[in-house]
Amino acid sequence: MILCDIGNTNATFCEDGKISQIGIDKFKEYKPNQKVYYICVNDQIQKIIKEQKYFINLEPYYKIDTIYQGLGIDRIAACSNITNGVVVDAGSAITVDIMLNSLHIGGYILPGIAHMLKAYENISPRLKIPINSQIDLDAFPQRTTDAISYGIIKPIITLLEKVAFGQNVYFTGGDGQFLSKFFKNAIYDRMLVFRSMQKIINEKVLAC
Amino acid sequence: MILCDIGNTNATFCEDGKISQIGIDKFKEYKPNQKVYYICVNDQIQKIIKEQKYFINLEPYYKIDTIYQGLGIDRIAACSNITNGVVVDAGSAITVDIMLNSLHIGGYILPGIAHMLKAYENISPRLKIPINSQIDLDAFPQRTTDAISYGIIKPIITLLEKVAFGQNVYFTGGDGQFLSKFFKNAIYDRMLVFRSMQKIINEKVLAC
Repeated sequence: MILCDIGNTNATFCEDGKISQIGIDKFKEYKPNQKVYYICVNDQIQKIIKEQKYFINLEPYYKIDTIYQGLGIDRIAACSNITNGVVVDAGSAITVDIMLNSLHIGGYILPGIAHMLKAYENISPRLKIPINSQIDLDAFPQRTTDAISYGIIKPIITLLEKVAFGQNVYFTGGDGQFLSKFFKNAIYDRMLVFRSMQKIINEKVLAC
Repeated sequence: MILCDIGNTNATFCEDGKISQIGIDKFKEYKPNQKVYYICVNDQIQKIIKEQKYFINLEPYYKIDTIYQGLGIDRIAACSNITNGVVVDAGSAITVDIMLNSLHIGGYILPGIAHMLKAYENISPRLKIPINSQIDLDAFPQRTTDAISYGIIKPIITLLEKVAFGQNVYFTGGDGQFLSKFFKNAIYDRMLVFRSMQKIINEKVLAC
């Protein structure tokens, strides 16, 4: 069984517990020869695959208790097994969603780390600087390279500490592991979305 | 007397207390017929004007007590009259600098609001949304438009509250007034940099 989480930059596959990733342009040429259970936030890709053989969209099977209008299926999938806590999916965008007693009580969106670095670069060539993964967030930066890495990571972590209010914070997505290192009560779970998809398949798709 | 603060996107003039602004491309054609005292963070413009008549660079007259390597002259100018507090210059980039007993103890850089909006737009057409200036930062967002405005403003304000540690926060720059509205102990001062430049001229340039 193949699971696939289709985003704006990459499509991430999970087959027998193994994760692999291809770029969106390459994914357009992908023709499966077995069932692919997928979720997709990319409108362009969704149009292409929804009529194709073997692709099974899991979105209609998901339900989440929320008043949020237009919550993306990737966020719904990531949150749907969390009773209490904050879910951070750090990919092209970083989505943050807050769960309380299995109710989704709101969330927000940040640009992902790569897009933040690009934003600095677009301001000035002086600010085209790679991220310093060893940045010390407990000291004020004393040079521009650190001022940018601090400027990307520290606001994310400071706000997360505030909204988490002592509850667990679950990180997933391509930059999830990296970001989780800066957070005290972090749980990094690369499989968060795929386990949610597998659960939906077992309970709602195969059971029918 | 004309003062000019040259950034990456705009050049801002102050003449007899009146502020005006032109885009950088237009500034390249600007030929003054009287003295223009300037500071400049734009390397390309600096190369053009440093040999030209009437342009007087104030950068060599500034001194600030800091161990920060490569602090931009715009940030030095904005901080140089602040004894204690946080200085936020919100333009193409948002620079945040912390002053303690007239000592610059560090700072960090965020992308400006326009560049943040562009970063969201680059992630997905779904995220191309203007800022909601009426966003309520005390409630979790319940729709994507609010999730983006909250995602831009709330992390900035939350971190500022932490680093300010009860001291005053001085906002300046094009988006300074807008951002200051979200902060309790905010002082908005559009003239912060120009008053600093005027002081340097009076004390160091004209006095010689």
